[in-house]
Amino acid sequence: MAKILRINTKNKTATFETPSDEYKNLGGRALTSKIVLREVPGTCHPLSRDNKLIFAPGMLTGTPAANSGRMSVGAKSPLTGGIKESNTGGIMSQKLARLGIQAIILEDKPDDDAYSIIVITKDSVEFLPANEYLGVLNGDMMPRLWERFGKHVGVASIGPAGEQRLTSASIQFADPKGHAGRAAGRGGLGAVMGSKKIKAIVVNDTDTDRPSLHDPEAFKTANKKWGELLTGHPVSGNGLPAYGTAVLVNIINEAGALPTKNFRSGRFDHAQDISGETLSANIEKRGGIVSEGCHPGCVIKCSQCYHDKDGNFLTSGFEYETIWAFGAHCLIKDLDDIAMLDRLCDDFGLDTIETGVTMGIAMEGGLIPWGDGKAAIELLKKVGTGEPMGKIIGNGAAFTGQALGVDRIPVVKRQALPAYDPRAVKAVGVTYATSPMGADHTAGYGVCQNILHVGGTIDPLKKEFNVGISKDLQVATAAIDAAGLCLFVAFPVLDDATGLQLIVDMLNAQSGLSLTTDDVVALGISILKDEHEFNRLAGFTQKDDRLPDMFKETFPPHNTTWDFTDAELQEAKTF
Amino acid sequence: MAKILRINTKNKTATFETPSDEYKNLGGRALTSKIVLREVPGTCHPLSRDNKLIFAPGMLTGTPAANSGRMSVGAKSPLTGGIKESNTGGIMSQKLARLGIQAIILEDKPDDDAYSIIVITKDSVEFLPANEYLGVLNGDMMPRLWERFGKHVGVASIGPAGEQRLTSASIQFADPKGHAGRAAGRGGLGAVMGSKKIKAIVVNDTDTDRPSLHDPEAFKTANKKWGELLTGHPVSGNGLPAYGTAVLVNIINEAGALPTKNFRSGRFDHAQDISGETLSANIEKRGGIVSEGCHPGCVIKCSQCYHDKDGNFLTSGFEYETIWAFGAHCLIKDLDDIAMLDRLCDDFGLDTIETGVTMGIAMEGGLIPWGDGKAAIELLKKVGTGEPMGKIIGNGAAFTGQALGVDRIPVVKRQALPAYDPRAVKAVGVTYATSPMGADHTAGYGVCQNILHVGGTIDPLKKEFNVGISKDLQVATAAIDAAGLCLFVAFPVLDDATGLQLIVDMLNAQSGLSLTTDDVVALGISILKDEHEFNRLAGFTQKDDRLPDMFKETFPPHNTTWDFTDAELQEAKTF
Repeated sequence: MAKILRINTKNKTATFETPSDEYKNLGGRALTSKIVLREVPGTCHPLSRDNKLIFAPGMLTGTPAANSGRMSVGAKSPLTGGIKESNTGGIMSQKLARLGIQAIILEDKPDDDAYSIIVITKDSVEFLPANEYLGVLNGDMMPRLWERFGKHVGVASIGPAGEQRLTSASIQFADPKGHAGRAAGRGGLGAVMGSKKIKAIVVNDTDTDRPSLHDPEAFKTANKKWGELLTGHPVSGNGLPAYGTAVLVNIINEAGALPTKNFRSGRFDHAQDISGETLSANIEKRGGIVSEGCHPGCVIKCSQCYHDKDGNFLTSGFEYETIWAFGAHCLIKDLDDIAMLDRLCDDFGLDTIETGVTMGIAMEGGLIPWGDGKAAIELLKKVGTGEPMGKIIGNGAAFTGQALGVDRIPVVKRQALPAYDPRAVKAVGVTYATSPMGADHTAGYGVCQNILHVGGTIDPLKKEFNVGISKDLQVATAAIDAAGLCLFVAFPVLDDATGLQLIVDMLNAQSGLSLTTDDVVALGISILKDEHEFNRLAGFTQKDDRLPDMFKETFPPHNTTWDFTDAELQEAKTF
Repeated sequence: MAKILRINTKNKTATFETPSDEYKNLGGRALTSKIVLREVPGTCHPLSRDNKLIFAPGMLTGTPAANSGRMSVGAKSPLTGGIKESNTGGIMSQKLARLGIQAIILEDKPDDDAYSIIVITKDSVEFLPANEYLGVLNGDMMPRLWERFGKHVGVASIGPAGEQRLTSASIQFADPKGHAGRAAGRGGLGAVMGSKKIKAIVVNDTDTDRPSLHDPEAFKTANKKWGELLTGHPVSGNGLPAYGTAVLVNIINEAGALPTKNFRSGRFDHAQDISGETLSANIEKRGGIVSEGCHPGCVIKCSQCYHDKDGNFLTSGFEYETIWAFGAHCLIKDLDDIAMLDRLCDDFGLDTIETGVTMGIAMEGGLIPWGDGKAAIELLKKVGTGEPMGKIIGNGAAFTGQALGVDRIPVVKRQALPAYDPRAVKAVGVTYATSPMGADHTAGYGVCQNILHVGGTIDPLKKEFNVGISKDLQVATAAIDAAGLCLFVAFPVLDDATGLQLIVDMLNAQSGLSLTTDDVVALGISILKDEHEFNRLAGFTQKDDRLPDMFKETFPPHNTTWDFTDAELQEAKTF
């Protein structure tokens, strides 16, 4: 049975625990959120020794199930002040599962300034001095740690942003090629890791096997259909592999929902220049990889390696939301500039959404000109140097807006809004407002029904049905995050009723349990209840489930506004 | 009858209005808070055009009543996000009263970057271009404006901090000598003035008379007793004139309640070095003024002019809380360094409490060494240059703590705690938690009963009775702020039952109304209700009425902790 690895970062001790009844059978987001709720005081400062940082593979992670290698990272967020589950790809999660580790819990913090690397193998958990790595970029950490500890070890590391405990700091994860392009990006969890003085965690699964399955044959049968389902759907089988998530640039722009110039309109004149089609064409021309998975066993392969004009590696895991944030939001139309900004975020360890939105706020505040990609690159580099302007930028949109006296700051619970305008994709707007995570598209991706006609069609411009859609998606997403499945499995699952049953079949074949689809829904609801309860203890109320007044502005081209009442929104949190 | 002067800062128009039924008869804080509640959307961004900045003399201001020259400045606070009344001395308030102006309401904001000065006389309201004054320090603004517009005009101005819209920015007011030492300090109202591109307001009351009194003889009789009451009390008649408010340094230190090294203990080894006694001795030795009033008609005269070692003017209005914030809180023991920090705050237009607490956070974060006054001066100067580190410091304690990754940040509603530890002066702690203003000692000064034995004696270390004391004081203070009286009249009024009746007698003799002492209490309650209602609309709940977890630490020498429950605290807001 899997164990919980509890690590005290002050005493540098590690103990393996049998999970309590409440923790056992949980994985991913279900487990991180349960531990945060039970073990972290709601009112504590997120950088204090009372906060904990939890890494948990999903329930299916470690099995051969397609797209099941995701991991949840949880803590009280330094950015929002509420609970945070930040979901990442990369190769570490499956290695933890093979080591029989259900979760790592990092506790307490050192009294001195000495950083450590934690190295976990089949036989040991070691703290190694890490001061030699201080200031090292994530993109350099990965190869250095592979060289030192063996190629293909799992790595989670923080960059200069996490070391500075900036609230946009991410934790970056090595992908199968050892690039640092995978991230637990949102909510500043890199700052929590920095506060505990952990520069990196290395997971070496040498001489381990996959966790055994209760019924391998039944699992194999279900997983075969599961893989076919994923590759057979037009979004997960065609659009995402061909163009990456950037396939959305033209789609969302066409829908009039691509927030442009800090959410002033829904269409960007230069959308084509930063589209998935342009991205793929550049890769074809320059070399690189059009389509690859973020973890072994992925059949969707929406990731890529993007090279510069000279054919040298520039960035990987180059996502739609990143391209939007630095692109349409900032009026930057040079995709290579945006790729460099993405690379810098990965290297410094910064959430690309928060940082891209912040860059637009810097433009709104007159710090650099709108659309000036080169100026944005120079400004972002200041995060790496640790100079004061870098501390401003690296603390995110609300912070930078305050520093510059800007009055249009698109955040909910102090977290920046992603790449879908809430006035033109209202189901996503409801998710922004009501998710326990703060503004987060992944928490309930209403773009499906509002724009993509996946799982039905709901008018994105009207209020009707969009609260209910957001609520259902939030529940489903929480369960998917608990399972360790990639969120993009939702596309086929929403369109094909057999999908959810296949997930249940795999869980049962793995564990010997007799779960039903109702149990999966109940799990999703239970996760959200835990998260809302933590936020309640932290001091959040329904008053925090609001969008800023700037969204009362009329939003072209559809000229809609944000018009939900507090009471209407609460429906999305009522189970 | 007094008029309301409504000024549109975008169109540069000014209109005089007869006050509505709801506004008439109100003054000071009663009026600013009523206008904010009625006219400012609770959810607006404080720097947006929807916010308004209101200046209102008190109800007794303009009469000969002793110590009645205070003024309230109100708005939605950029620091707290809630309502703000910031109370100031200086000479402007009485001049507005003589001009028959019940309140100035600044609305909207310009579309361009052109700053203005507003000049108000008996005959006109003019907008003058002010770009030539941009960056000019408040200490230089006052003499330049006196030279241009006539000696002894009333002046309110912002410094570089307000121009940068920093959330610690104050509005500074000329005192009778033309020093910029009087401030509407707390809550960042200087940033609101900066957002509206108003560098200064000049009020010239040439050729005006005092407002007429309904019953001059009755007024004179009451005012004579009133003056005797103020000068006859040991605190307002002796302690404050002799040593200024800094008389409290030794008293609060002796009580074990002087927060030292960012609220780690209640005693500062070098308290004597920064005491009121040392301050007065320095003035006696160097020249300067030991005791003067902040406005004409003051009989307490707790203000002073403090000179440097060479006998040159250094600062004025050098308060206990300022000395504590830069002194014990930062472990700075050189009173001249602290005086220079006070001067810089006045010049840049910064709240000294917020900025002093911030300096301690900068020390906590390792930016400068504890106790290093010279380093603090150099750091503070960066606010004046507008460089990024200055923007960090100038945005206050919570902001600087976030920038530096500090986890012990003493704020309530994002406003820094003042100079009395809530674990050792619990009635003030209740005020910090529950005042609509955020942490603010002036909103309900429980030091009276907890330490000074004024108005009774309540154990400062226990919970018993301290909620009730805070509540009663919050009500009384609101009424005093509405009347335009100096807060220090509370010392004699708390100890002598005739005091409140004398205030009522003066109000009735002034207006011809038939108010009772009960009406004054009702006025105080009504003000607090308005303020709590605005905060409710802005999104505040009782969860915001909490002190940070750092106050769960045991506080020496009395080794008490902050131990009020949410429910207990709500009693202070229940009327």
